[in-house]
This record gives sequence, structure tokens and C-alpha cells, in this order.
Amino acid sequence: MTETKPIRAKADDNVVFVGKKPTMSYVLAVLTQFDNNKEVHVKARGRSISTAVDVVEAVKNKFVRDAKSQVAIGTEQVEDETGRKLNVSTIDITLTK
Amino acid sequence: MTETKPIRAKADDNVVFVGKKPTMSYVLAVLTQFDNNKEVHVKARGRSISTAVDVVEAVKNKFVRDAKSQVAIGTEQVEDETGRKLNVSTIDITLTK
Repeated sequence: MTETKPIRAKADDNVVFVGKKPTMSYVLAVLTQFDNNKEVHVKARGRSISTAVDVVEAVKNKFVRDAKSQVAIGTEQVEDETGRKLNVSTIDITLTK
Repeated sequence: MTETKPIRAKADDNVVFVGKKPTMSYVLAVLTQFDNNKEVHVKARGRSISTAVDVVEAVKNKFVRDAKSQVAIGTEQVEDETGRKLNVSTIDITLTK
């Protein structure tokens, strides 16, 4: 049988999804990704968008001072528990060192 | 005496500061600004950053479909009640129709 999971993990290697953990745990994740990549994507949806910006600003101001960021925003459709479709805002910040 | 206040109000004409009000009230403010300007800045700090993205996405998806957005993020220093300096993340989204 073909093992597809490791390939997908590889493709997501330089992506950090920001959720409800403390900001610094995502900063650490970004710094770890920067060890092997010149470019790291910091992604978030909904209320976590503010935290994603905090993460990127912390990386730029405290750790990787020459890093550049480029921001893309968008909308995704998700289903809530009752199957109703909701629009949720997304952010994708590309950090390049 | 020179009246400086109206001049400042004029300069801020095409800026909408997003805070804790419902998203739709800021969407309305942006649409009002678009009546007189080709470019509107949607700005926010801290937790309101997520709402600012919601505002821009609502304007683009529901009202001004040909609008383009460009996003800049940054950090500002503010003082809390005790005078301690805190870093707060900022966002400035330029909407152009």
C-alpha cells in the first residue's frame, strides 16, 4: 500500500497553524521551521488572526530581525455543528529570512 | 486663534479605526468613506485585528466586489494604567476600489 501521510506532512513542513495556545509556543514553532526553511507560512482563522499577527511581530522584533513579512487575507466557508455554512476570515503571513 | 481640529479630521477622513462595536457598523463606515474616496484604510490594534479582517472581507465579498486590499502589520508601544510599556500588534489594511 502506498503511504501518503508522510508526503502531506512534508508539504506542510513550513506552515504553522495558529490556534488557542500561548503566543510563544507558535513563535517557537516558527523559529524551529526557520532552521530548515527560508520561508515560513503563519496561518490562522477567525479570532486567532490577532494571535498570528502577534506571533509574526514577536519573531521579527525579538528573534529574526531581518525577516520580511507579506500578508494575504481571505474567506473560507466552514460548517458549524448543525451543518449551517459560515464564512470565516483567514490570514496567511509569509515570513522570509 | 488657529483652528487645527478640522484639519486633522480632514486628514483622517479615509481611515476607519476598528474597535469593539459589531462588525457591520465598521462595514457601514467603510462604505460611507468609499463614497468620497478611492482608498480607505481599515486600522486596528490587538484583539480587534481579527474584526478588521472580517470588516474588509465583508466589504469585498458582499458590497464592493472589485475592491483590492493590501495589508501591513506592525507593532506599537502603549502604556497600561500603571505606566508600564507594552507592545501591541497593529494592522493597516488599504482597500482600493
